[in-house]
Amino acid sequence: MPAYKAPLRDTRFLMNEVFDYPAHYQTLSNGELADSDTVDMILEGAADYCENVISPLYQTGDDEGCHWNNGEVTTPKGYKEAYDQFVQSGWQGLSYPEQYGGQGLPMSLNLIKSEMMGTANWAFTMYPGLSMGCMNTILQFGTEEQKDIYMPPLVAGTWSGTMCLTEPQCGTDLGQLKTKAEPQADSTYKITGTKIFISAGEHDLTENIVHIVLARLPDAPAGTKGISLFIVPKFLPTAEGSVGERNAVNCGSIEHKMGIKASATAVLNFDNATGYLIGEQNKGLHAMFTFMNTARIGTAVQGIAHAELSFQGALPYAKERMSMRALSGKKDPEKVADAIIHHADVRRMLLTQKAIAEGGRAMIYHAAQLADKMTDALARGDNAEYEEYDDKLGFYTPILKGFLTELGLEAANHGMQVFGGHGYIKEWGMEQIVRDARIATLYEGTTGVQALDLIGRKVLLSSKGKVVRDYTAEILKFSGRHARNKYMRRFAWDLTKICAQWNALTVRIMLAARKDRDIVSSASFDYLMFSGYAMMAYFWAQQAAVASEKLESGEGKETPEFYKAKIKVADFYFERMLPRAQGHAEAMVNPSRTMTSLAAEHFSFDY
Amino acid sequence: MPAYKAPLRDTRFLMNEVFDYPAHYQTLSNGELADSDTVDMILEGAADYCENVISPLYQTGDDEGCHWNNGEVTTPKGYKEAYDQFVQSGWQGLSYPEQYGGQGLPMSLNLIKSEMMGTANWAFTMYPGLSMGCMNTILQFGTEEQKDIYMPPLVAGTWSGTMCLTEPQCGTDLGQLKTKAEPQADSTYKITGTKIFISAGEHDLTENIVHIVLARLPDAPAGTKGISLFIVPKFLPTAEGSVGERNAVNCGSIEHKMGIKASATAVLNFDNATGYLIGEQNKGLHAMFTFMNTARIGTAVQGIAHAELSFQGALPYAKERMSMRALSGKKDPEKVADAIIHHADVRRMLLTQKAIAEGGRAMIYHAAQLADKMTDALARGDNAEYEEYDDKLGFYTPILKGFLTELGLEAANHGMQVFGGHGYIKEWGMEQIVRDARIATLYEGTTGVQALDLIGRKVLLSSKGKVVRDYTAEILKFSGRHARNKYMRRFAWDLTKICAQWNALTVRIMLAARKDRDIVSSASFDYLMFSGYAMMAYFWAQQAAVASEKLESGEGKETPEFYKAKIKVADFYFERMLPRAQGHAEAMVNPSRTMTSLAAEHFSFDY
Repeated sequence: MPAYKAPLRDTRFLMNEVFDYPAHYQTLSNGELADSDTVDMILEGAADYCENVISPLYQTGDDEGCHWNNGEVTTPKGYKEAYDQFVQSGWQGLSYPEQYGGQGLPMSLNLIKSEMMGTANWAFTMYPGLSMGCMNTILQFGTEEQKDIYMPPLVAGTWSGTMCLTEPQCGTDLGQLKTKAEPQADSTYKITGTKIFISAGEHDLTENIVHIVLARLPDAPAGTKGISLFIVPKFLPTAEGSVGERNAVNCGSIEHKMGIKASATAVLNFDNATGYLIGEQNKGLHAMFTFMNTARIGTAVQGIAHAELSFQGALPYAKERMSMRALSGKKDPEKVADAIIHHADVRRMLLTQKAIAEGGRAMIYHAAQLADKMTDALARGDNAEYEEYDDKLGFYTPILKGFLTELGLEAANHGMQVFGGHGYIKEWGMEQIVRDARIATLYEGTTGVQALDLIGRKVLLSSKGKVVRDYTAEILKFSGRHARNKYMRRFAWDLTKICAQWNALTVRIMLAARKDRDIVSSASFDYLMFSGYAMMAYFWAQQAAVASEKLESGEGKETPEFYKAKIKVADFYFERMLPRAQGHAEAMVNPSRTMTSLAAEHFSFDY
Repeated sequence: MPAYKAPLRDTRFLMNEVFDYPAHYQTLSNGELADSDTVDMILEGAADYCENVISPLYQTGDDEGCHWNNGEVTTPKGYKEAYDQFVQSGWQGLSYPEQYGGQGLPMSLNLIKSEMMGTANWAFTMYPGLSMGCMNTILQFGTEEQKDIYMPPLVAGTWSGTMCLTEPQCGTDLGQLKTKAEPQADSTYKITGTKIFISAGEHDLTENIVHIVLARLPDAPAGTKGISLFIVPKFLPTAEGSVGERNAVNCGSIEHKMGIKASATAVLNFDNATGYLIGEQNKGLHAMFTFMNTARIGTAVQGIAHAELSFQGALPYAKERMSMRALSGKKDPEKVADAIIHHADVRRMLLTQKAIAEGGRAMIYHAAQLADKMTDALARGDNAEYEEYDDKLGFYTPILKGFLTELGLEAANHGMQVFGGHGYIKEWGMEQIVRDARIATLYEGTTGVQALDLIGRKVLLSSKGKVVRDYTAEILKFSGRHARNKYMRRFAWDLTKICAQWNALTVRIMLAARKDRDIVSSASFDYLMFSGYAMMAYFWAQQAAVASEKLESGEGKETPEFYKAKIKVADFYFERMLPRAQGHAEAMVNPSRTMTSLAAEHFSFDY
């Protein structure tokens, strides 16, 4: 079983050397709180908690799963104690306002903490993770009274929260949702309906669970324009802010899933449950969209988390397992065979994992800075700046969520493959990572939904391709700056080519879509993946640029091997992974006809 | 849960229209047995057994798994009854000699039967499947006495067999194996050692289990040249051929695995167990290699089996689940939303599954004809012809095993993805297919082992690229014949290009390997996948050629939509899947340096 070790060297390389987080924090109104001592304390404290408290519960939680008994859910052994420790250390309030008991630090620190926790134990991390969607909703749309009631215990972590969107008949297509909210004389609402797939919907970790529920008012317009948001707590809060009467929301069952078995996925039945409107009537879906970017980036983290954890499992095994001899001659001549890390094809798998984990981490850490800027602008009430960063993040979001979760699953499979047949055996823990990683391309918008969001909404509809033009202009500027550096020359050239191609493909599909509407969907997956490979190339080049500067300036002389390794992995990425973009480019430009012309009843003549 | 339906229309299309099995059978010495009535009876009988007996046990077997109790293994509920029915119907002896109670039919019919059974319930099918390796070993290398003792009950299926190769310290690298065989005065041997990952190694389905065990004689040379084969039955046979004394082989435990849970994977402890030498001393590995091709093609079937089953699950769901509207306008205007089969990106996944299942099936059915020819030459004692077909099959084998199992896993994941979040829930049965499919790239030689076998042994070492030159020459001849047909023109052109590229890549790597030995390994995976995409393109073009002939000649006028669908899926394959070969081509030609130069200790600076 892979024992998690926080990759602090890489985290610090990105924070301090690549993205200059110290300078970034100085630009934020709450940035002075994030001084280097505080950041160090958080990184090391989180590493300690992850390595020693929740990582050991990763495999046992999968083995045991959650237990449902007459509406009550018990989490696996040790989860309650680990969660209590999380609450006692104040981890939940890291980036939430001091006025509600939080520490008021920038959101990026919360994301980095979540990355560590999620890598150590994704299923565990989902419990406090789901609270964030709830807290963000209340913070942005709640009344002062609602904030005063709900935020303190949520920020403390003694209460948790959920987002109740999905129903049996609809997930993506929320316009179909049926849950009803009937207004009462006391200005509360009676909520009735069934919600499914509610992560952390019922459990034994907290005193109360605050559900944010999407429902329809009696006179609501049909479709997505008739959805409102309600706060429906498991226990109604008393005037003193403690836990009062039990509300009529019950957990009918929990799902039996492929993975993340320690995370309870609840069916919730609302049976005239008391709810409180939050935000404006019928504007619920619009409010949801406000957080979609941050929620999806939170899920994108799962891609790098499982790539990292699977790499941490595969690397030591590849160094220990002896099999055959390397083609270029004995590498462990005194041993019965060479360690499999000496076989190039095993290295292909390990390096792919490493390229995904570290390349993806760089993408996330950059997006986290945009999220900081956006949150800060919101706090300062600067709407123009808020919109600017929201747009930027909106372009990254589907790429990060869609591309990184697909690659995270691939990386998890590579780690298992390195183990050969042993990878298939539960006790090694490698197959669990694959099962856990598999959910990431499904929830919080499937890869197909991300792909359509990227090309349909973000690239074509909102910006007619401008967002790609602007982004590639930034990459080209970077390439120009590094075109003469001996390490960077080949990256600069490949980036220049891929940027030109990215724009050309965008224009080509935009023009084709005038006559062939379906091409936006038929091209979407390949466009998403192409964009992901192009973007990750830029982030590998940025890391290589910093590494080459450190080597040339002599600043990196204490650990030159670290910087050389960064350049070698960047090389690997450009030579071995970036070429995949060509297959996607070639596929996407075909008209949609080949995909749409087969009648549904002709997909099979046997069944 | 997907209920299996045998795709007989597609099977008959391949057997009768594409590969002309009736004419093929006439060329075999045992071919007259396989007349069209017999073939029909087999197809329909197998379909009935698969659909009604073993398919219903697929999900329940996974839920329950196998039980180990003090060395005894119990298979899931219903497995024993289903296996008894298999025995009573004589399915095990289909392609084994009449002199031992079999029906003496060509091997291809056995493979087609196994495909159906494996698609309906792979874990179940492994029990009789493992017997085949054992039977083939005894048939080819056993003495007449050994054949007389073991073949009748194995052919009947009342006994089963295993292949005991793997040990804890070695799988691929069998040179490391340690199991000992000490000669006794009565010319038997005492076998001592531990074997792991023994599929069907212990179970309650048969009276006896006949293990073929790889072990070392006391004076054996080190490495692979010192391995001999032994028959080690669970119960020693009596002179009358019934079950006698219990032998000293015991099942220490069974593995807890990601999937194929109804298949017992045993740890077997041999503790001075009585064994009988089979074949020549120290030539055991060589003997194993004789069957490797057929065994690996048997595993390649798993790729198409799980692609097919996952497609059978996803297709009806995609027709029923309503979500959003198609971009080109409402397709189900009277419904609340369109069925998701109308979204191009969902079609991308379904068509990819279909292209893999049907394209892979064509590859397998062609290889099955080569296997028939090879087996027939062996039976007739025509060594030259045997070698010829063995070589041909040897080229197909790593491509079929490596490429089809990788794509089968991809297809299983697509099927799950079509279900969105529901795909992650056990009750739908889609995630089980992914877990079951996951073993296929690991056992019977990992994908990496297949890749090295293809480029290292089959292409470069044995033939200096001739095997690719010959194969592409055949494809080019085909392309020439169809270059002017309106349906076939574009396929012919793409095939011509990919053949030229396949040869060019082969030569380029061959030349590079003179100075860069590791490139054979660093390029191997990409070379395998490129070869697979190129080969599958040829098999889709062959199907399209037959379909277009049927449409043009009017012969296909009763079911024109079947033939049109074949051409459309071929179009999809060439437009959307074949382009992936370009990414592999671009990646493989890079020198191995990028992959080999990073020191093992520099893969991480954190752990």
